[in-house]
Amino acid sequence: MAAEIKALLFDVFGTVVDWRNGVAREVEPFLRHNAMDVDAFDFADEWRALYAPAMEEVRSGRRQFVRLDILHRENLDRVVMSLGADIDKISPAELDELNSCWHRLDPWPDSIDGLLRLKREFIIAPLSNGNIRLMVDMAKRAALPWDAILGAEVVHAYKPSPEVYGKTVDILGFLPEEVCMVAAHNGDLAAAQLCGLRTAFVVRPTEHGAAQKTDLQAEGLWDFVANDLGDLATQLGCSV
Amino acid sequence: MAAEIKALLFDVFGTVVDWRNGVAREVEPFLRHNAMDVDAFDFADEWRALYAPAMEEVRSGRRQFVRLDILHRENLDRVVMSLGADIDKISPAELDELNSCWHRLDPWPDSIDGLLRLKREFIIAPLSNGNIRLMVDMAKRAALPWDAILGAEVVHAYKPSPEVYGKTVDILGFLPEEVCMVAAHNGDLAAAQLCGLRTAFVVRPTEHGAAQKTDLQAEGLWDFVANDLGDLATQLGCSV
Repeated sequence: MAAEIKALLFDVFGTVVDWRNGVAREVEPFLRHNAMDVDAFDFADEWRALYAPAMEEVRSGRRQFVRLDILHRENLDRVVMSLGADIDKISPAELDELNSCWHRLDPWPDSIDGLLRLKREFIIAPLSNGNIRLMVDMAKRAALPWDAILGAEVVHAYKPSPEVYGKTVDILGFLPEEVCMVAAHNGDLAAAQLCGLRTAFVVRPTEHGAAQKTDLQAEGLWDFVANDLGDLATQLGCSV
Repeated sequence: MAAEIKALLFDVFGTVVDWRNGVAREVEPFLRHNAMDVDAFDFADEWRALYAPAMEEVRSGRRQFVRLDILHRENLDRVVMSLGADIDKISPAELDELNSCWHRLDPWPDSIDGLLRLKREFIIAPLSNGNIRLMVDMAKRAALPWDAILGAEVVHAYKPSPEVYGKTVDILGFLPEEVCMVAAHNGDLAAAQLCGLRTAFVVRPTEHGAAQKTDLQAEGLWDFVANDLGDLATQLGCSV
C-alpha cells in the first residue's frame, strides 16, 4: 500500500511563479534608463542562464554556501558587462533594486487557488533555491499561503544536491515517500525521486517563452502529471 | 531617528500559545490511563522545568544540536520515571503521542487577531526554540498566520545564545534595529537587545498558573511593553 502523502514541497521559479515575465518587466525600465539597446526578455534569459553555473560552484564544494540573492547580484553585474555597458556608470543602488525583482514575481494564474486547496489537506512549503527572505517577500506580495519557508538556505545546499531533499524530509519528520516534490522541471523530480520522495510534474510550457523546448512533458515515471496546480489538487483529492 | 521596524520575531511558548493548559490537557488522560496519581499541571511544570537544562547541554557545546522534539521526548521519560512510574510498562507509541502535545497548544485569546493585524505591516515569524515541524503543526492547527518559520532549528542553536538572534537577522537581511523581538520573558528580550534588536515585552501573567512570580513586569528598558498582541499591534500603528 502506498504511504499517504503528508507534505508537498514546491519548486518555485517556473513552477509557482512566472520569473521570465516578472524579471523582464523590471529590466525594461532599467535598460531604458541606462540607454542599453537590449531586449528585456533576452536580458532576463541571459541572467537566468548564469543561475545554474553559479550554484554549481557551491554544489561542487568550490565555494561555501551563499544565498541566492548574492549569486543573482554577481550574475547581474556579469550580464550588464557582457552586454557592453559600463557598470561603473550605474549606481550600486540601482543594481540592488533591479536584483530584488526576483522578490516580486507574479504567480501563474492557477497558483494561489491551487495552493489554497492543497493547503487544506497537506503541509505546503517551497523547496526552492531562492533564499528565505526572497521567498518571504514573494509570498507576502503575491499571497502565496505557505505553511513554512524551506529550501536551500535552510539546509545550506542547492538543488539538485541530494542533501537538499534528504535534510528537508528529516526536518519535516516524515518518511521520504510521505513527501511529494512538485516541479515543472524533470531534473528536479529525478533528484527527488532518487531520494525516495514522491513526484508531481506540473507542465509550464511558457516558462521560457513561446519557443520553449525543454520540460514540455514528463520525462520520468512521476507519481502525478498535472496541467496546473488546480489539476494537481483535484488529482490529490482536494475539494474545490 | 529610529530605524523603521520591518520584521517582528516572536517567542512562542508562553508568548503566543498557552503551553501549560495545553500540555496538562493531554497529560491528564495519560496519567489516568497509566494509573499515575499526579496532578496534570504539576506534571506539565516538571516537564517544562527540564527544558532549559536540556537546551543548556547544546548551548554549552557539550552536545550537538538536536531538535526540541527530541529533548522533549527525553525529558518526558525522565519526568515519568521521577514520578515513580515503570516506564517499561508504557508503550513508546503512547509516550510519542503525548510528546507531540507540544504541537497542539492553543493560542492565547488575543494571539490570532493580533498577529493578523501585525502581519499587514510587518514580516512576522516565530523565533522559538521549538523545531520547524512542531511550529508548522501548531500553526496549521491554530491558524497562526506566520510568514515564515524561523528559530532554533534554522540556525542550529538555542535561545538565548546570541547567534540565534544574529543569524536570524542576517537571514532576514535587515539591520538588527529593524527587527523587533516579541516575548513574555525578560531574559529573551535582554539577549535580543544585546544583539541590537528592538524589544517588545508582552505580559502573560498566567503562563505559569495563577501563582506565577516571574516575568510579571518589564525588567529592562524595552522599546514596547504591551498587555497582549492586540495592544502591541495598536502601539505599532496597525489598523484594527
